Amino acid sequence: MMHSQKAIVLVSGGLDSCVTAAIAAQHYTMAFLHVNYGQRTEQREMRAFNEIADHYKIDERLTVDLSHLRTIGGSSLTDPKIAVSPANLHSDQIPGSYVPFRNGNILSTAASWAEVIHAQKIFIGAVEEDASGYPDTRKAFFKAFNKVIENGTKPETRIEIITPVIHWNKKQIVEEGFALNAPLQLTWSCYQNEEVACGVCDSCAFRLRGFQQAGLNDPLPYEKIPDYRQ
Amino acid sequence: MMHSQKAIVLVSGGLDSCVTAAIAAQHYTMAFLHVNYGQRTEQREMRAFNEIADHYKIDERLTVDLSHLRTIGGSSLTDPKIAVSPANLHSDQIPGSYVPFRNGNILSTAASWAEVIHAQKIFIGAVEEDASGYPDTRKAFFKAFNKVIENGTKPETRIEIITPVIHWNKKQIVEEGFALNAPLQLTWSCYQNEEVACGVCDSCAFRLRGFQQAGLNDPLPYEKIPDYRQ
Repeated sequence: MMHSQKAIVLVSGGLDSCVTAAIAAQHYTMAFLHVNYGQRTEQREMRAFNEIADHYKIDERLTVDLSHLRTIGGSSLTDPKIAVSPANLHSDQIPGSYVPFRNGNILSTAASWAEVIHAQKIFIGAVEEDASGYPDTRKAFFKAFNKVIENGTKPETRIEIITPVIHWNKKQIVEEGFALNAPLQLTWSCYQNEEVACGVCDSCAFRLRGFQQAGLNDPLPYEKIPDYRQ
Repeated sequence: MMHSQKAIVLVSGGLDSCVTAAIAAQHYTMAFLHVNYGQRTEQREMRAFNEIADHYKIDERLTVDLSHLRTIGGSSLTDPKIAVSPANLHSDQIPGSYVPFRNGNILSTAASWAEVIHAQKIFIGAVEEDASGYPDTRKAFFKAFNKVIENGTKPETRIEIITPVIHWNKKQIVEEGFALNAPLQLTWSCYQNEEVACGVCDSCAFRLRGFQQAGLNDPLPYEKIPDYRQ
């Protein structure tokens, strides 16, 4: 079904962005944007991105290389010298996987593209609760970014960042994904591996806990599936 | 002379950023950031960047490739299919050389780097008056971007964008450059050529008018030097 308004959806290839796309698909013609920034599992994420885009029959897709974020460093996601720490779901610390101001870079790219292809919305699957340690996933950050876009684009341009899952936990995201028939079997979340998900990194832990709390089965293969329900 | 606080200076290689560096040099230890985004005169700008960095004996320098801005297109600066229009110093239109949300992308890069190298300031030589058509060079845009950085970086991070020449005209910038002994002979502004500046593109026209109004000699070679004083 074609919708008259166009939205860019930031699709990493993970669970949250896949469900975000399923939400955007209800009301917008979608354009998919994927960003490589030197993350360890870049190839696997790219495959997930393309398979999700194929699923939704997306014509306009753009992959952008922001590998300067790796050059700049500072994160275990991009710097092989920093170890990936085991999951700690109860820590208030900024995690080592934090890429400094990553979402600022990604949203700037999206805003440039949105202005050129006349998209009115930018959907991003940021989640405030599960990633409380990432300052650039907070609602206040996106609100401030909307102001920047309003001030930094042509007067006739109307672009708004939409964060439909920001106040949800992983359980709710998994449930909504099932409700909307999102292709969760095509997604990839693991920070560590590219073939079989490790099951123990931050990203696997949050994801698995969401499926476990929802009482639903994660269609991905895992090396190890700890019980994360307490 | 070493200063205790560190500032990133965005150095395109042009006049404005060179004078901005001369201003920052008075109070900060400088790190220089240069961005390639597929602009036509990229090689020439890089040479200017490195020569200005050598002049100021800069240890920390970073060149970042944002060539996705060329892929995204929409500007005569990066899209060979869009002609560079002759200068019109009195137009209120957004010029064809506008790269959509370019400064959003550049400042995001700078913010990531600043967080990693612990720089407290980001100096950018944006000028509101001469480039009234570029929405991402307005004071309001930088003010909004400071809010985004405040919200999107670690709580202990203090990074502020400084725009020392934003309310100046080119005449004032040229005069300040001479006053601070900025190495204007090393700069490059022309959008069109890499050997001898054309003298007629927007960028040459604004620059030449500044020197002419200040009654000072532009040390660069030009193909053509129209009188821009009226």
